[in-house]
Amino acid sequence: MQELIDLDREECEALLRAGVAGRIAIATPTGPHIIPVNYSVVDDAIVVRTSPYSLLGSYGRDTTLAFEVDQFDYDEQRGWSVVARGRGDFVTDIDELDHIREVWAPQPWVGGSRTLYLRLRWTELSGRRVGAGWDALSRMPARRSL
Amino acid sequence: MQELIDLDREECEALLRAGVAGRIAIATPTGPHIIPVNYSVVDDAIVVRTSPYSLLGSYGRDTTLAFEVDQFDYDEQRGWSVVARGRGDFVTDIDELDHIREVWAPQPWVGGSRTLYLRLRWTELSGRRVGAGWDALSRMPARRSL
Repeated sequence: MQELIDLDREECEALLRAGVAGRIAIATPTGPHIIPVNYSVVDDAIVVRTSPYSLLGSYGRDTTLAFEVDQFDYDEQRGWSVVARGRGDFVTDIDELDHIREVWAPQPWVGGSRTLYLRLRWTELSGRRVGAGWDALSRMPARRSL
Repeated sequence: MQELIDLDREECEALLRAGVAGRIAIATPTGPHIIPVNYSVVDDAIVVRTSPYSLLGSYGRDTTLAFEVDQFDYDEQRGWSVVARGRGDFVTDIDELDHIREVWAPQPWVGGSRTLYLRLRWTELSGRRVGAGWDALSRMPARRSL
């Protein structure tokens, strides 16, 4: 059995900014959903590309969203997770879209028309790790790189 | 760019039943949350152990929950995910608790008092994979074993 340790804000941000794929929880008329996404972080917001006809495109605007990224180490039975929460909106302003593409455009693994840029500006950031004595960031499975 | 392929029900169940850790999305008065959990599958339900004072303990009863398990392959830019949705309830019946412990008791990696058994009996099961020509189940990072 391991300890559960809160991550400080700096650690949360570092892990969040280094990630490539996570999941968004969204409220819909039939209850909560979870959707795996490729994402990028631009300034203090998570940005994902989606379709206007998806769950995120249908219900992701002007509502609170939760985004999660984690890493489980099954052999060692440890891991970490970071959750960012805040209001979702769609980016339509040309200058803002240019800024996103300049900083780090989200790069979906999946093809198809993903014309909608959903942004989650976080107002709440929290993270936890299971187990002491190891460095979460150095154990990222994939690091964002330019 | 890869294809997005729907998994059939049998594949969803196989992946769900083989997993060890996933995430629950839950509605709370301040919007959706995502909580990483260790889980087990007993009959047609996901079972997790939690504390009565946690988010799941506070808001997980008699409400729709979404559970997700996934695996991302960052090198190949592919992966799969399965989402199970259904009503959450707390298991308090002694015979039902015995049955859960016999079949496969959830084994949290984290210590502490987790006396509450939250059950999600799924009524909706869906899954997707990114990319064709590989076997999701054989690429599970950890398999449940007796």
